[in-house]
Amino acid sequence: MRFIQNALLIGALGATFACADSLLEKAKSYALEPIPEDIDELLSYVNDKNDPINYQKIELGKKLYFDPRLSKSGIISCNTCHNLALGGADGVDAAIGHKWTKNPSHLNSPTVYNSVFNQIQFWDGRSPHLADQAQGPIQADAEMAAPKELVVERVTSIPQYVEEFKKAYGKNVKINFETIASVIGVFERTLVTPSPYDDFLNGKLNALSEKEQAGLDLFMEKGCTACHNGIALGGTMQPFQVAEKYKFISLGNFVGDKDGMVKTPTLRNIAETAPYFHNGGIWNLKDAVKEMGSVQLGIDISDEEADSIVDFLNSLTGKKPVITYPILPASTDKTPKPSAD
Amino acid sequence: MRFIQNALLIGALGATFACADSLLEKAKSYALEPIPEDIDELLSYVNDKNDPINYQKIELGKKLYFDPRLSKSGIISCNTCHNLALGGADGVDAAIGHKWTKNPSHLNSPTVYNSVFNQIQFWDGRSPHLADQAQGPIQADAEMAAPKELVVERVTSIPQYVEEFKKAYGKNVKINFETIASVIGVFERTLVTPSPYDDFLNGKLNALSEKEQAGLDLFMEKGCTACHNGIALGGTMQPFQVAEKYKFISLGNFVGDKDGMVKTPTLRNIAETAPYFHNGGIWNLKDAVKEMGSVQLGIDISDEEADSIVDFLNSLTGKKPVITYPILPASTDKTPKPSAD
Repeated sequence: MRFIQNALLIGALGATFACADSLLEKAKSYALEPIPEDIDELLSYVNDKNDPINYQKIELGKKLYFDPRLSKSGIISCNTCHNLALGGADGVDAAIGHKWTKNPSHLNSPTVYNSVFNQIQFWDGRSPHLADQAQGPIQADAEMAAPKELVVERVTSIPQYVEEFKKAYGKNVKINFETIASVIGVFERTLVTPSPYDDFLNGKLNALSEKEQAGLDLFMEKGCTACHNGIALGGTMQPFQVAEKYKFISLGNFVGDKDGMVKTPTLRNIAETAPYFHNGGIWNLKDAVKEMGSVQLGIDISDEEADSIVDFLNSLTGKKPVITYPILPASTDKTPKPSAD
Repeated sequence: MRFIQNALLIGALGATFACADSLLEKAKSYALEPIPEDIDELLSYVNDKNDPINYQKIELGKKLYFDPRLSKSGIISCNTCHNLALGGADGVDAAIGHKWTKNPSHLNSPTVYNSVFNQIQFWDGRSPHLADQAQGPIQADAEMAAPKELVVERVTSIPQYVEEFKKAYGKNVKINFETIASVIGVFERTLVTPSPYDDFLNGKLNALSEKEQAGLDLFMEKGCTACHNGIALGGTMQPFQVAEKYKFISLGNFVGDKDGMVKTPTLRNIAETAPYFHNGGIWNLKDAVKEMGSVQLGIDISDEEADSIVDFLNSLTGKKPVITYPILPASTDKTPKPSAD
């Protein structure tokens, strides 16, 4: 009797594991990939070959990321719109920048977390990587509004920054706008957030609950993985507004790139980064899932199905790197003054 | 011969120590006080009897301090103007707040570091302590512009915040605007920054260089300690614009309190918190020293004297508490949406 009970128990467990096992295989066949556990494999993504990672660069990049003196006004930093405390975004529909200007295309600030896994940057995909991307918002009139020369003057007027650049890049470093943006990119590339979902994909089959596993299965079955795949679950260019029979919530004046393509946002930490879409048009994650079903896939996703997919999406909330808030070096008499105009 | 050399050496050292020793005695007689080294003595300042300190409150207060959702727009936090990375201030002449509004009295944001040692808060001294002070900027139209009810709704709509309030204050906590501001105050009260100057006052006579000691002596001799005394080297109400024969750099439309009194700013970390004065009118510390000599003391401070006093002021740059940047709990469907208007 005891023997039979054990055999049944093992059989039941076996069935569960076999199921999770095949779900894992299925996920791999749908091009879903974990953040690598292996440090060398992880570094193959995180490390920028054009600006190889080292500890000094990460610390310097972190300081510059948090330094509002990179903006014309002196009060807006990279972290203002890509707030590491708020899932790496700003929690408003359209970014607000210099002189309280809303983003002219009413674009929502994407999360900086895991942005290293995006194949391209910006909603219209116009930037190939973070070292390049970081140059944009600093200069944009509606964001930080700082001309290149001003940024370089500010940074090089502060001896500790010059010293830290030398430590990071060697004595002969040329501190120009490109190196400043690049070292910010080095810091940003370290902002990866492994989640229970990654544990599952890395073989820990009980890392996701049955509900979450069911949601993952439905996520694949419904076709979400057509765009949301790879490590980022997004980060590639995809056609904007596919299903003609449905209309997207107000597109605003953003039309994607020249071919009408748009960068699929990552789904990592999606539960923390409302509002959703390029225009921040929807605040509720379930509503967002249903909207994408209709607009992109041309299908109706039921309330129950959307709930199940949201169960899965919640498992994408990852562990954030511990960031010590930096103490920034003081300005000097040579530091160009902030201007709010 | 060896004996005589040693005796001379001891004599010389003795003389130096005796000199620093008497400078220390002099400083005490001028009502200069260190941040206490003794933890119980320090706690007698840091602890708010009306809201006794505990670890949970500090962590919760820190989260709220960094949370931009305490502002109407969702993008301005306490830390925006009192930036812990920038000496606890914002580095601009007059604070910029909601809708890019400059402070209507063109007032400069004072540092939050060591503000617990101020006897009163705000430039016009209208607030008795930080738990009260924190209520001001959150509501002010030109700062965070959030009505009390909105702040309470935002915080109580987020289950993790409710949970943290219960852990900090007990199950029956009433989360109202006053408790929210008070717990921010608890965090702020921990932001003290001991400096080499404190080490000196606490008896480590070689903590200040000879130059810094000379500067301290001159600081007392010139009469700066008339207003800049106590632990804060400031933080009390003093007459505004004392010396009639000199005119202050543009007063702006700020006239102090009803009796024409103004809160003397702390000098701690002063080298990190340019621009100076209630209106941020002067950017250079040496110029600021000279200005105060003429306006407040009615004396001319020479360039050499000002340099020496600045040597001393640099020793007031303190060690900042290590702050782990918080991960804030996500908003929910019930969280009132941000509004930039």
